[in-house]
Amino acid sequence: MAEPVRAGRRPRVVVVGAGFGGINAAMRLGKMAVDVTIVDKKNHHTFQPLLYQVALAVLSPGEIAQPIRSILRNYPNTEVVMDEVIGFDTKARRVFLKSGAELLYDYLVVATGSTHSYFGKDEWAKLAPGLKTLEDATEIRRRVLLAFELAERQMLENGQHPPLNFVIIGGGPTGVELAGAISDIAKLYMRRDFRHINPAMAQVMILEGSPHILGAYPEDLQASAVRQLHALGVQTRTGSHVTDVQPGFVMVGEEKIESVCTLWAAGVQASALGKMLAPALPCETDRRGCLLVDGYLNPVGHPEVFVIGDLAHFEQDGKQVPGVAQPAMQMGNYAAGRIERLIHGKGEGQKPFRYFDKGDMATIGRKAAVARIAWPFRAHWSGFMAWVTWLVVHIFFLIGFRNRLSVFRQWAYTYLSFQDGVRLIVGSQELPGWNELMEATPPPVDPAVEPRNTSGV
Amino acid sequence: MAEPVRAGRRPRVVVVGAGFGGINAAMRLGKMAVDVTIVDKKNHHTFQPLLYQVALAVLSPGEIAQPIRSILRNYPNTEVVMDEVIGFDTKARRVFLKSGAELLYDYLVVATGSTHSYFGKDEWAKLAPGLKTLEDATEIRRRVLLAFELAERQMLENGQHPPLNFVIIGGGPTGVELAGAISDIAKLYMRRDFRHINPAMAQVMILEGSPHILGAYPEDLQASAVRQLHALGVQTRTGSHVTDVQPGFVMVGEEKIESVCTLWAAGVQASALGKMLAPALPCETDRRGCLLVDGYLNPVGHPEVFVIGDLAHFEQDGKQVPGVAQPAMQMGNYAAGRIERLIHGKGEGQKPFRYFDKGDMATIGRKAAVARIAWPFRAHWSGFMAWVTWLVVHIFFLIGFRNRLSVFRQWAYTYLSFQDGVRLIVGSQELPGWNELMEATPPPVDPAVEPRNTSGV
Repeated sequence: MAEPVRAGRRPRVVVVGAGFGGINAAMRLGKMAVDVTIVDKKNHHTFQPLLYQVALAVLSPGEIAQPIRSILRNYPNTEVVMDEVIGFDTKARRVFLKSGAELLYDYLVVATGSTHSYFGKDEWAKLAPGLKTLEDATEIRRRVLLAFELAERQMLENGQHPPLNFVIIGGGPTGVELAGAISDIAKLYMRRDFRHINPAMAQVMILEGSPHILGAYPEDLQASAVRQLHALGVQTRTGSHVTDVQPGFVMVGEEKIESVCTLWAAGVQASALGKMLAPALPCETDRRGCLLVDGYLNPVGHPEVFVIGDLAHFEQDGKQVPGVAQPAMQMGNYAAGRIERLIHGKGEGQKPFRYFDKGDMATIGRKAAVARIAWPFRAHWSGFMAWVTWLVVHIFFLIGFRNRLSVFRQWAYTYLSFQDGVRLIVGSQELPGWNELMEATPPPVDPAVEPRNTSGV
Repeated sequence: MAEPVRAGRRPRVVVVGAGFGGINAAMRLGKMAVDVTIVDKKNHHTFQPLLYQVALAVLSPGEIAQPIRSILRNYPNTEVVMDEVIGFDTKARRVFLKSGAELLYDYLVVATGSTHSYFGKDEWAKLAPGLKTLEDATEIRRRVLLAFELAERQMLENGQHPPLNFVIIGGGPTGVELAGAISDIAKLYMRRDFRHINPAMAQVMILEGSPHILGAYPEDLQASAVRQLHALGVQTRTGSHVTDVQPGFVMVGEEKIESVCTLWAAGVQASALGKMLAPALPCETDRRGCLLVDGYLNPVGHPEVFVIGDLAHFEQDGKQVPGVAQPAMQMGNYAAGRIERLIHGKGEGQKPFRYFDKGDMATIGRKAAVARIAWPFRAHWSGFMAWVTWLVVHIFFLIGFRNRLSVFRQWAYTYLSFQDGVRLIVGSQELPGWNELMEATPPPVDPAVEPRNTSGV
């Protein structure tokens, strides 16, 4: 048990990370007689399940993100610090911040989640961005849209452009969602926008190292997802280990696959903070760097420290609980409740945390999705039905009423009018790998094919 | 007169720049029997009059910008090229693009607008960003919001922070709008968001070199604007020439004015393209680099070239037409109509362009604005009435029905609930000048003022 807090002072709780786990912990702690400090590098909470829609220009960043201060505005016992945690002293119960400040805690909740893992090939990151933050989403949007613009521009110059191959490395939910969304953009929403290229000729390919797309899903839904992807024209290649990522192409063993835009949806690892916290406790980690926690979400020997969400390695019924939003939210809620009991000396006899599995869903594209429903009944759904369920559930879970309305309106517009939202290219006009691809593209076979605008002079 | 176009071929019109002038020209040309190519560095048209609302987190970038392709989607005779013009051959009627392509034209419309002028001190640009693009707006938003976050963070560390002085250089409409909006954010929308700092203590100051705020407005409205600014707590200093901009402060002569965030709303100059086009024609320019055009918006001797919008120096009744949206739109429309008449050999006898002045408006803040109304009646309005007029006019002129609805909803939300929109800090966490200000800030006078979170240990 944690030592009892000195009488006459409100217990202090420091929450690190404002993802689903941290925000849910802070909101519940905000209603208790404790002082809460939440620390995050960003000033906003991001609704990660919809990040891919920002990346593919259906939604705006502001529709899936909310300032942490706004979320916690009505809890006067909470404070928000936009700063980076750079270390822990778990004996003196201190957290060190990059700015130089220190935070003392009676209870610590660490929920800094996970980040991309390039399996030691960090130089791939620039060529194949992953999708974890709003900045990532904006960058992916920029690259995908720019590829079409550059192809159109290139047609003016010499009537030829490199094939519009989009390669997505990783066939989990994020990879599948990105692939389907790119296909939708190219085939549905861009139909009438270009004069020289046909965006529908874009080719989207998923490269998955394991034998299965959506490996965490039941077999029937895996098969259905593959069928739905193929119906959209997305190629899926399983058992395909990427051995190199270069400007303009990807290597799978000896095979070279050209790519105007490569996206990373393969590996994740514990956030860097996990690597600092684990030796400070000390606490065992799994191979991804996630901290092993007991039934109360505590690293062994530290009942005052909670590790929750993606950063925690928590096993239930012999299986690791997945690193998605639902378990993180439930863990955040449990940790806050556990802290309340500990403060009142009622920690003994509390039931350990148990993940209440409501199911999993992944969208594939317009009217295409798979859903494993575990509550309130059990079912496996595919296609339109799964897609509608996905829409309803995601609107329902969006934090903030304002965003909910706005997203609903945007989706109604997009799916009824076949027009996506905000196809803005912001920032640089350089696409990594484009020049290499241009050099590799042979000149037009038929010299009669002249650029339209300079013909007929 | 331009030479007649060879029979059997549709005349080609190249429009450079997709601001208000270019887009309006392209839309009208899109209905004519010509082939139109519009070239812009960006893939989107920006509704510049509302950029400051993106900068101050009321609106999202997607709400005031629209892809050029979407705007011109329904005109099959138009094409959009996202590229940069790097030169003109006005004899052979060619436009050279950065990518290497060339565009031939029968008629050329140049509408590349203006950019910031730092009066030769380009090194100030990084310390005092201006407001012309979505990228600028996002950067200003980042800096303004970050200043409050850093102050709050600093209070944790040593119970002291540099004064939150925001200095805006330039007292034209943009400067006034930025000043009022920062004041609104600090005093209204952030009220309950911070625990250690009082955002309402923020001090906003406008430094204007000339003797008048809103110099282009009638005197009574100038005076009213100053009164309204003062009521919001904004300081205005006229006749104040900025002699230096440094990290953390601004110099006005010998006086040093501390600033956590300096914004530039002072000078504008013709876009770089003007400097290329003028010698190629050749054409005289004014001191800002704007091209002198005749009554048909042509540089002398080039009836096939139209220079419109901010890039043109066009005088009417002995006064230069201002570089704002209305004249640009009217010029775009006129140029397209003139091209149609020239094609049909009906150019002779056409009335020269005349700017139809409907008035000017500048918002100052919530319920505060000035409006010089010139049509359908003449009036000078101030305060709430001017502000409501401003709201209605700006929603009405927003290109795109979707955006209009979205902006209306957002404004209703903001002004009724006292909550602004999307206060997201995206990108770096560095604020230029902050460290210099921190060093200049004395330690707390009263050593008993300890940081809250480490007190009572």
